[in-house]
Amino acid sequence: MPPIKATHQLTKQHNRDLVLKTIFENDTISRAEIARVTQLTRTTVSDIVAGLILENLVKEVGLGSSIGGKPSILLSLVADSRYLIGVNLAQNKFIGSMVNLRGEIKQSVELPVQGEDGEKAIQLVYQILDQLVKKEWKPIVGIGVGTPGLINTREGIIVSAVNLDWKDLPLALLLQERYRLPVSVMNDSQATAIGEFVYGDHQSDSNLVVVNLMHGIGAGILINGRLFQGDGGGAGEIGHVLVQENGLLCRCGRHGCLETVASSRAVLQDLQNVSNSPEISTLDEVEAKFYDGDPLANEIVLKAGHYLGTSIGSLIGTLNIKKVVLTGDMTRFGPSWLNAVGQSMSQAALGRMVQQTQLELGKLDYRACILGSSAHLLLDGYSLLFLQPEN
Amino acid sequence: MPPIKATHQLTKQHNRDLVLKTIFENDTISRAEIARVTQLTRTTVSDIVAGLILENLVKEVGLGSSIGGKPSILLSLVADSRYLIGVNLAQNKFIGSMVNLRGEIKQSVELPVQGEDGEKAIQLVYQILDQLVKKEWKPIVGIGVGTPGLINTREGIIVSAVNLDWKDLPLALLLQERYRLPVSVMNDSQATAIGEFVYGDHQSDSNLVVVNLMHGIGAGILINGRLFQGDGGGAGEIGHVLVQENGLLCRCGRHGCLETVASSRAVLQDLQNVSNSPEISTLDEVEAKFYDGDPLANEIVLKAGHYLGTSIGSLIGTLNIKKVVLTGDMTRFGPSWLNAVGQSMSQAALGRMVQQTQLELGKLDYRACILGSSAHLLLDGYSLLFLQPEN
Repeated sequence: MPPIKATHQLTKQHNRDLVLKTIFENDTISRAEIARVTQLTRTTVSDIVAGLILENLVKEVGLGSSIGGKPSILLSLVADSRYLIGVNLAQNKFIGSMVNLRGEIKQSVELPVQGEDGEKAIQLVYQILDQLVKKEWKPIVGIGVGTPGLINTREGIIVSAVNLDWKDLPLALLLQERYRLPVSVMNDSQATAIGEFVYGDHQSDSNLVVVNLMHGIGAGILINGRLFQGDGGGAGEIGHVLVQENGLLCRCGRHGCLETVASSRAVLQDLQNVSNSPEISTLDEVEAKFYDGDPLANEIVLKAGHYLGTSIGSLIGTLNIKKVVLTGDMTRFGPSWLNAVGQSMSQAALGRMVQQTQLELGKLDYRACILGSSAHLLLDGYSLLFLQPEN
Repeated sequence: MPPIKATHQLTKQHNRDLVLKTIFENDTISRAEIARVTQLTRTTVSDIVAGLILENLVKEVGLGSSIGGKPSILLSLVADSRYLIGVNLAQNKFIGSMVNLRGEIKQSVELPVQGEDGEKAIQLVYQILDQLVKKEWKPIVGIGVGTPGLINTREGIIVSAVNLDWKDLPLALLLQERYRLPVSVMNDSQATAIGEFVYGDHQSDSNLVVVNLMHGIGAGILINGRLFQGDGGGAGEIGHVLVQENGLLCRCGRHGCLETVASSRAVLQDLQNVSNSPEISTLDEVEAKFYDGDPLANEIVLKAGHYLGTSIGSLIGTLNIKKVVLTGDMTRFGPSWLNAVGQSMSQAALGRMVQQTQLELGKLDYRACILGSSAHLLLDGYSLLFLQPEN
């Protein structure tokens, strides 16, 4: 294609994306307001909107308030005009959900994971997806998967996911071939960060850190409204940052990683060891003891919060990001744990940097990963990749 | 202005910036190559280049090799068609330099700083700039200042620079009014990072961390080719990240910051204390002892390297950036110090992330800050702000 056409085509594409993104970011919006926000002319906006209405992506939903002049017609995304599948490959269970364009979960399929790994774990993913694609939600525009481990998102490869014994697994390709749909594969903490950013009411912040505290610990870092993955896809791997020289052995083979002292796994093991109570086998039991006022459980949970706070302090002292959202299993320990995190955070970096930082609990629990995985399909750099008209 | 004109104007501006940036990034380049790189049409490129030649920003410099067809005319930036002033407000001396568009330093003025602060320090800056603007280098298109401290670059305010006793100082405004030139003010480590990025041969990396080891310690983080300053301008303040619980008192009022163990100040103080040699009063003397094989000096310097490496490991374990450049006073301790940094770095985060990371010494010494401060004027988001034609 000669350059002039490419450029023209790119501009059209870019303008359409801009309009669609603006509608996506607002419950309802008028054409005039879109023109104001996007700086496009009203004619351009009207033309693009006409196309989007034809594609059934956008509809007119009523009249806005009028200031002078006649009231303007409000537009809205047609939430159920397309569906996405989001999958969360968590430690003990895999969950897949059908999600509409507004991030509403229409249906979920869940399978327990009891040690399945390798090919067996892949079969579990197929089982979930097979069930979901059979349902009435149509058309499906893509599949997004969030999984623990180091992921090469660009190529859709699981570089390494220790729990599942996956190494250099081209999961995106496998799923694309089986389901004939675009597939995005990403780290679960990064997916969770996108989920919280897009659907957790944090969009007023263009930079955001989301720390996901599960069996392991990972973070997702949004910079200027986009996920930052680093040069190798591993940005946010704070679970393996050293916090205790000569500390406990980590599953990564090193000693004293943050995961060994601040994850849900660490807290459970710690309580088993310290209280000599091997009968405690789940985090629910730790939680019960904690809320019963058990002093050992209390000490262990707050210590975990302390180490986490120090690590977050380093991160914020380095990136100077104003908002940190905590998600995952450990958030069940509530305000006193959050308080321990905050106190240690504020001691670990310059006051003027950490004082500005708000520490919050996530709003979406396990759904954040599902919604983030699916939203990534829509919103990679806000290009709304898979909502392109065919031509 | 009605939106249609604004959009058209913005597109023209954008295309001109793109062409100028492409010429800036290449020693010489043909119009056809510019069209290929920018995806603009040859006609558009030719029109823009004609304008740039009229402005004397670009000139034709000869013929390129021909592959078939006739040889193409090569273009180049006219390095000495405009000048910028870059200023480095370092601990013991202030340096201002006249820099051309290729980052060549034409002349420098240097003044020792012997405890001057507050208004007196501002007067020193005026003295340097007064001398520079009198010289034959014309036209000057702007002044860029790099200074230690927390800086609000957008508003040109020194929020806090402890050494100079500056607090909420509107330095950009003061200099703009005095010299009638655009002024950019930024943190010295961030400026150093831009300098190394633009002129230190690292442009093939779109992400880069530069750690500047002076009296204090700071870093500059480039993400997708742009300086990341965080929500409050303080991104990169790794000097005040906690590395030793209950460690030495830092000048920030907290204990155990990285600066207290890994800066040039720390090394000097440490040697004075440990060797009971108060007569050692400069880093040059520490260096002499170090290279004489003094075991205490050796131990102290390598310990400083160890702590630095651990901090860099955390940073890289979090951001997964492939290249880290070390600059500043401490780099004088050469390969064995660098080795200590590298070893500790590789223990502080996941192997697969730190193994990919190259640790290098900066190439530009104190000039990095000067060149970065001045380049920031040209290249803020590559908009070549102050090379706009008047209209």
